[in-house]
Amino acid sequence: MPRIAAFGEVMMRLQVPGYETLVQSNRLEYSFSGSGVNVTAALARYGHHGALITTLPETPLGEAAFAYLRKLGVDTSLISQGGKQLGMYFLENGFGARPGRVTYTDRLGSSFNTAEASNYDMVALASKVDVLHLCGITLAMNEGVRKQMKQLAMEVKSAGGKIVFDCNYRPALWGEDGYTKARPHYEELLELADLVLMNEKDAQYILGIGTGEYDRITQLKQAIPEVAERFRIGMTAGTHREINADNTHSLTGYIYHQGTFVFSSKLTFPVYDRIGAGDVFASAVIHGELQQYPHQQTVNMASAAAMLAHTTQGDTALFTESEVLRALSDHTLDVER
Amino acid sequence: MPRIAAFGEVMMRLQVPGYETLVQSNRLEYSFSGSGVNVTAALARYGHHGALITTLPETPLGEAAFAYLRKLGVDTSLISQGGKQLGMYFLENGFGARPGRVTYTDRLGSSFNTAEASNYDMVALASKVDVLHLCGITLAMNEGVRKQMKQLAMEVKSAGGKIVFDCNYRPALWGEDGYTKARPHYEELLELADLVLMNEKDAQYILGIGTGEYDRITQLKQAIPEVAERFRIGMTAGTHREINADNTHSLTGYIYHQGTFVFSSKLTFPVYDRIGAGDVFASAVIHGELQQYPHQQTVNMASAAAMLAHTTQGDTALFTESEVLRALSDHTLDVER
Amino acid sequence: MPRIAAFGEVMMRLQVPGYETLVQSNRLEYSFSGSGVNVTAALARYGHHGALITTLPETPLGEAAFAYLRKLGVDTSLISQGGKQLGMYFLENGFGARPGRVTYTDRLGSSFNTAEASNYDMVALASKVDVLHLCGITLAMNEGVRKQMKQLAMEVKSAGGKIVFDCNYRPALWGEDGYTKARPHYEELLELADLVLMNEKDAQYILGIGTGEYDRITQLKQAIPEVAERFRIGMTAGTHREINADNTHSLTGYIYHQGTFVFSSKLTFPVYDRIGAGDVFASAVIHGELQQYPHQQTVNMASAAAMLAHTTQGDTALFTESEVLRALSDHTLDVER
Amino acid sequence: MPRIAAFGEVMMRLQVPGYETLVQSNRLEYSFSGSGVNVTAALARYGHHGALITTLPETPLGEAAFAYLRKLGVDTSLISQGGKQLGMYFLENGFGARPGRVTYTDRLGSSFNTAEASNYDMVALASKVDVLHLCGITLAMNEGVRKQMKQLAMEVKSAGGKIVFDCNYRPALWGEDGYTKARPHYEELLELADLVLMNEKDAQYILGIGTGEYDRITQLKQAIPEVAERFRIGMTAGTHREINADNTHSLTGYIYHQGTFVFSSKLTFPVYDRIGAGDVFASAVIHGELQQYPHQQTVNMASAAAMLAHTTQGDTALFTESEVLRALSDHTLDVER
Amino acid sequence: MPRIAAFGEVMMRLQVPGYETLVQSNRLEYSFSGSGVNVTAALARYGHHGALITTLPETPLGEAAFAYLRKLGVDTSLISQGGKQLGMYFLENGFGARPGRVTYTDRLGSSFNTAEASNYDMVALASKVDVLHLCGITLAMNEGVRKQMKQLAMEVKSAGGKIVFDCNYRPALWGEDGYTKARPHYEELLELADLVLMNEKDAQYILGIGTGEYDRITQLKQAIPEVAERFRIGMTAGTHREINADNTHSLTGYIYHQGTFVFSSKLTFPVYDRIGAGDVFASAVIHGELQQYPHQQTVNMASAAAMLAHTTQGDTALFTESEVLRALSDHTLDVER
Amino acid sequence: MPRIAAFGEVMMRLQVPGYETLVQSNRLEYSFSGSGVNVTAALARYGHHGALITTLPETPLGEAAFAYLRKLGVDTSLISQGGKQLGMYFLENGFGARPGRVTYTDRLGSSFNTAEASNYDMVALASKVDVLHLCGITLAMNEGVRKQMKQLAMEVKSAGGKIVFDCNYRPALWGEDGYTKARPHYEELLELADLVLMNEKDAQYILGIGTGEYDRITQLKQAIPEVAERFRIGMTAGTHREINADNTHSLTGYIYHQGTFVFSSKLTFPVYDRIGAGDVFASAVIHGELQQYPHQQTVNMASAAAMLAHTTQGDTALFTESEVLRALSDHTLDVER
Repeated sequence: MPRIAAFGEVMMRLQVPGYETLVQSNRLEYSFSGSGVNVTAALARYGHHGALITTLPETPLGEAAFAYLRKLGVDTSLISQGGKQLGMYFLENGFGARPGRVTYTDRLGSSFNTAEASNYDMVALASKVDVLHLCGITLAMNEGVRKQMKQLAMEVKSAGGKIVFDCNYRPALWGEDGYTKARPHYEELLELADLVLMNEKDAQYILGIGTGEYDRITQLKQAIPEVAERFRIGMTAGTHREINADNTHSLTGYIYHQGTFVFSSKLTFPVYDRIGAGDVFASAVIHGELQQYPHQQTVNMASAAAMLAHTTQGDTALFTESEVLRALSDHTLDVER
Repeated sequence: MPRIAAFGEVMMRLQVPGYETLVQSNRLEYSFSGSGVNVTAALARYGHHGALITTLPETPLGEAAFAYLRKLGVDTSLISQGGKQLGMYFLENGFGARPGRVTYTDRLGSSFNTAEASNYDMVALASKVDVLHLCGITLAMNEGVRKQMKQLAMEVKSAGGKIVFDCNYRPALWGEDGYTKARPHYEELLELADLVLMNEKDAQYILGIGTGEYDRITQLKQAIPEVAERFRIGMTAGTHREINADNTHSLTGYIYHQGTFVFSSKLTFPVYDRIGAGDVFASAVIHGELQQYPHQQTVNMASAAAMLAHTTQGDTALFTESEVLRALSDHTLDVER
Repeated sequence: MPRIAAFGEVMMRLQVPGYETLVQSNRLEYSFSGSGVNVTAALARYGHHGALITTLPETPLGEAAFAYLRKLGVDTSLISQGGKQLGMYFLENGFGARPGRVTYTDRLGSSFNTAEASNYDMVALASKVDVLHLCGITLAMNEGVRKQMKQLAMEVKSAGGKIVFDCNYRPALWGEDGYTKARPHYEELLELADLVLMNEKDAQYILGIGTGEYDRITQLKQAIPEVAERFRIGMTAGTHREINADNTHSLTGYIYHQGTFVFSSKLTFPVYDRIGAGDVFASAVIHGELQQYPHQQTVNMASAAAMLAHTTQGDTALFTESEVLRALSDHTLDVER
Repeated sequence: MPRIAAFGEVMMRLQVPGYETLVQSNRLEYSFSGSGVNVTAALARYGHHGALITTLPETPLGEAAFAYLRKLGVDTSLISQGGKQLGMYFLENGFGARPGRVTYTDRLGSSFNTAEASNYDMVALASKVDVLHLCGITLAMNEGVRKQMKQLAMEVKSAGGKIVFDCNYRPALWGEDGYTKARPHYEELLELADLVLMNEKDAQYILGIGTGEYDRITQLKQAIPEVAERFRIGMTAGTHREINADNTHSLTGYIYHQGTFVFSSKLTFPVYDRIGAGDVFASAVIHGELQQYPHQQTVNMASAAAMLAHTTQGDTALFTESEVLRALSDHTLDVER
Repeated sequence: MPRIAAFGEVMMRLQVPGYETLVQSNRLEYSFSGSGVNVTAALARYGHHGALITTLPETPLGEAAFAYLRKLGVDTSLISQGGKQLGMYFLENGFGARPGRVTYTDRLGSSFNTAEASNYDMVALASKVDVLHLCGITLAMNEGVRKQMKQLAMEVKSAGGKIVFDCNYRPALWGEDGYTKARPHYEELLELADLVLMNEKDAQYILGIGTGEYDRITQLKQAIPEVAERFRIGMTAGTHREINADNTHSLTGYIYHQGTFVFSSKLTFPVYDRIGAGDVFASAVIHGELQQYPHQQTVNMASAAAMLAHTTQGDTALFTESEVLRALSDHTLDVER
Repeated sequence: MPRIAAFGEVMMRLQVPGYETLVQSNRLEYSFSGSGVNVTAALARYGHHGALITTLPETPLGEAAFAYLRKLGVDTSLISQGGKQLGMYFLENGFGARPGRVTYTDRLGSSFNTAEASNYDMVALASKVDVLHLCGITLAMNEGVRKQMKQLAMEVKSAGGKIVFDCNYRPALWGEDGYTKARPHYEELLELADLVLMNEKDAQYILGIGTGEYDRITQLKQAIPEVAERFRIGMTAGTHREINADNTHSLTGYIYHQGTFVFSSKLTFPVYDRIGAGDVFASAVIHGELQQYPHQQTVNMASAAAMLAHTTQGDTALFTESEVLRALSDHTLDVER
């Protein structure tokens, strides 16, 4: 069984239930997530072994995070303890024309973002990992974390493992002149990556590859091969999202491999919880590769999995392969009884 | 006031609130339902007298079921006590492409399904019933219950009462070769029934009448008259359901009587709680017959009532006739104030 | 900073959570609202000073209302205490074809509706008010309240303030022959008003101006200028609402000023909580006037604000101007993070 | 089976959950109760037939009250419909030194308190009642209700039934000079009553019998026989309540019959919900009399039942006789499993 | 790190929140527990490795149980899948004189109780276990489970492991003549056990050792050495519980080893959730033995842990050793901040 | 009306409802508090004018804090906006021997603790304040905040206002050698203060005045006069808390003024929510002084108010003077109806 690990932060998600705002309500529901959490949990649900590499505080909040990760089926044995804080975000649900709102507490003070490099035995960790998942959100944190991320990636590569990198560029995290600041770090990661999650906007804004003159598919077909070639990336994959006037979303997934694109059909669906869907897409692509499925099958499954992720409470969406396949074949199903 | 009774099991429904799964949540909301419960409660709300014939355990769960039935307006004076268990099902709501899930506990061990025939004084019961409602779900349980069901139907017939039989075939309950096993029992019930709820699929799969070669309406028009003639059934009624790509459902109701079909217009609507809508349709057909309404009026009302049932929390949907008529005339209403 | 005040009742809103009815549930969520509350709170959120003129009981319910108003940012210093009761309404949410239901307790016994005129020092109040908001719901209550309302309007006018009157005709409150009873009182208020919220139905049914022969826009264009001229009203504004077959609503706002109509585009949107949207429209029109925005800008913003009000829990919808502008420019937004 | 009926108002109880106040919370839990409701429901639970005579509005609130009464096992067939309002009270729980608070809405406008005498066919009702329960709270309402109450009592007496009267004097309802106003009405009812619930304070303050000079037991032993003799009352019963420094309560029950007092032992217990405990005591006394139990057994059971009522959520406490007997024999029990 | 395993059933606990009964409420909170669950989870929290040996159904309920066990820190890798049902119990909280109530669904049909012996590879399992925990509740189930339990115990013994047996006699499970039926099975287990949890009542009623003539401590001191000698048991331990008039409980723990008794002091405390406290006592005794603590220290810690278990929501109480030690040294602590 | 202001941080309190821990639950209830919040809100409830001087972020969390403060009746017009974070703490309730736990997020990064001195116009603020409340918790934050606190105190003094200083020493905030670090800052504040809240432990540990050799009352009587004299403090006040074996708490309040001590009687009571009780005591002392009540009356009221604060949900306890007086005269009250 291949051992997949993700290096990333655990966030506490504090959501106002229903459609009230923080001003109106006095209740929250909490869970724990993060890109690495979502990916390792999803892969565990597909039957792989998923472990998280992170640092959590030794506080009641840290304990609660540990327990939650265990519940998700994530292997917590590679997690360090230290520091005092957990990153948090508050979520107010939107409805129709009123967008949802996310408010972060200061992530930079979290146990993960303040951990010393010496916290992690990179060589030992690398020896336990066949596939390492990294994410652009972690890259945006601070110089210390970026170094740890790159060092771990290099150790895993040296030990014969594979690197998955999800670009996941978040403008709010990089601040002013973000693309300029981010570019060299993204380039380092892309050099190391075997599978990259990105789309044409990432190529254009972060790397300056491609232009915005044509329709998005044309842009994609132009930019992605250039990126893949420049950084010698084995496979790239990603999605196009459209938000429709009736508040449904549409997704189209793509995989690019050795000069060839495959696309899923465009899936259109109502949305219950939008957060974390990208991680579910990435997880299904990784799963498809581990199973050596044909790329068309993989991109279809990954798009269907991402669609299902929009119908699920919380950031972390857990499905079996058979649930994804059923959604792929028919998504207007009656209650199962 | 005609006295309607139903013979059937009371189930405890344990629903995860909102859109979480049993893995994610730690809360349930419970109520008590069952085909017979839904039908007698709906008829009580239309102003008739509805009593349930069943067996409940003398436990706190049984007490809670009794109290809930009283709240619904169901006459509980014909209910026996005995046995130790109540049938239960757990419901996880679906959303969009993610279907809802129903998980049953072992129904066969319930007080109802293990009750001895001697538990019921069939002759005395029959003397208190003008219309008896029976359902294919009960028929699927076990030989003991089937015998009780048939005996009660015969006693009611002998005493001059009418029999309503809702085919309600559930593949999961009959298991492998289910149609073959079920057929003789369905045939016995159809022989006794005055009003039958069924559609062309029931005719074809259970009875082998009609084929799947044509569109569903043609199939219906071919199969139902043949069934009615073979079993000398006074009236048959039923619905066609379509699940649309935008997750709305559409329903078209029909009534067949003495060689003539009447159809409701097709109603399309969003769905809040799908379970129990068939029982609401059946109840409205029974109500229309008891009131001797024209069949076109009855089928229109029954379809509108079934539509309303999809908008109501819980299996058991309670409406007055005037609420149904208003939904029939206009289902895009502003808040009433 | 202009001082806006509203004269009107505070109601306790008791809502069954989710989609259960009062028969099914055993829980309520409560808040406090009313036309005057909604308008002064919305204007306070836009940065103005909003005060409520009303009477509240000195009971735990009255205390809770005071605290809730403070939370909304409403100035409570002009509120009298007296009487014993608070008006209340119970709200059951509808779903699809099942309309929501509002049940009032006896409003006529409330502190506001039984307060003596001597309760209010009209001259002193008028000196603290630049814009006074009045509403047809208050006009429907009883002769005492009507007299207070008119006297306060006259004092504000004398002191150089402006009067806003929202017709808000509620058939249930006026009872039989309601239009006939209401007409003289509406005429008195329209004589005093500088800005009137109404539409062509108000003109036709209350004032007998215009006819129902043409489409609604033609009716509006015919009736509103006639009303404005007859009563020398500086500005009139209002909305057309349509309820669509897919349960979305559509709104088109208009402003009429010195012989010219401006219309917003028609906005179509899903509805979460319909109550109070008219007050949000009115508030945005008042805000636009206080800011001396062009009328086209005002009517666009007011329609977008009313749309947003449909997406918000509770009667009282609070938005900043920038939130309204964003909804105006694009109402298919992704989560903000 | 003796038929017990109670004449009295149904109140909606709206309770803030937990220990927040109405200012702090935004949630309520509701149920329906009243002295007559509590007594008939408790007697139904003991196996008797209990019916309520009252008037409820034809509104969603009235529907909810009907359904709740049915759930309690109360026969609702003697209830009239009319009027528009339901009496309500809001309950904030106290804790330790902070007392709970009850806030009433205007009871006098309720369907029950505004119903015409012609609403009730007193002769027909009397023919269906063997024991009629009346309560001093109803007596405090208004002249119309008092007349109905007395007339019904006389008709029941004429028809051979028995009258139970619970003095239940509430100072807040009678207002200033309340005892003086109340006295003639209490005297009329005492003349009619066969079983009276009262204690020495009622005797002294309402009837001017006995003095406050001695300890409460001496007062009781002096006053009750005098009351019983003057009004020819077959049996009187009641409780002494003490509230202890550790917030436990203590109750001692008494029965006086034909010159003899019997007392229960003093029971001391923690309190969860204090409201309705007096009605549970009364119900158990009536039950004891209907079963012709020895008075010592009756007063013991009634005191134990009242103790249990303090441990139960809501006004209406439902116990079987065996549950009461077990609490009587041992009230420090482990969980039953 | 010693590997502890428990063989036993996972139960779903469905608790009515607060102090309502199943009749009054419509909500439940659920968790998963069982003697083996409680013990392995508690030992995992003390830093040991705890695994459960059981069978769970492949249903959404089974999935939820798996996730819950993982959250508790229990190793689920030894769990089989099969069967269709999960044992369940409903819990209504008591208050004061009103005892809590537990209602079981049919445990005998559960996956665990219907699993074939071939479901478990006893030799392989035994090779992974240093300490095996068994419980008298499992022994009460049926012959199949009893055989599996004994076979597993013998294999573990053969492989050099230790057996812990908690007598946990439940009269309701053994039915009539329960002690007689149970005795031979208990004797077999006692022969195998190295550490036995029992008290003098178990000795007397199950084994017929000792008498009830003296005070409980004298009985204990007489019976336990006799049991230990007869069955060659290395260590026995247990608690005396008293339920006090003020609804507090008192516990005194004992350990008997090689002719010597040690007792904890008697701890008296208020109770929040009583279920599972015995398992927490047992876990702490096992922990003490694994750590080779002096017996006095072990019995003190185990009693303090059991006390803490009464203050914790749910059956499964998780504490670190330092939390137990702090409770032991001072149990009147202020909030920690 | 004297204008009271407090300078201090607003904290978000996130409480696990009921008695679950953060590991067990998934829900939180939130409110906003802080020493300054509690004091100004309590004084506003007594009828004074209470304003908070602080800095809040312009985020949805900041908005929610503003709204909550308004609800409490606190004047928010002196609050600055800036920074990005709000201080937070998580609260898990204890039960009996299991202590509650408080977990802070990083307070030092909050808007209040990172605000520049230039954020506040100290002279302008001082002109609006008659009494300024300061607290030792603020003093523990960082050098910037300490300087602002002292500067504001000096400006208020210069402008003729009074300073109240509550020592409120929190060991966790000062860290190692805390008393040594804290002492010079406390001394500066004590020099400025007119009314000081402290007890003998503060005197001994922070200031090195008095010894621990005698009973606490003797210590108090020795240390407080020395402190008062050394720092020329007009009045000192405080409480002794005892936590009893039955989990009740006992409080005794004292006031020392011009050489004379007055003590309240010792109040013993059950505890619902312990946090914030010290602020309620301080508020009542300030209120007594503003009303020029005799010191005995003030200390009695302040102790009763602190007792009531323990019975109230949340940090901020709001009572009217008459509610405090009633609790003082009798704290074993029946429900008020």
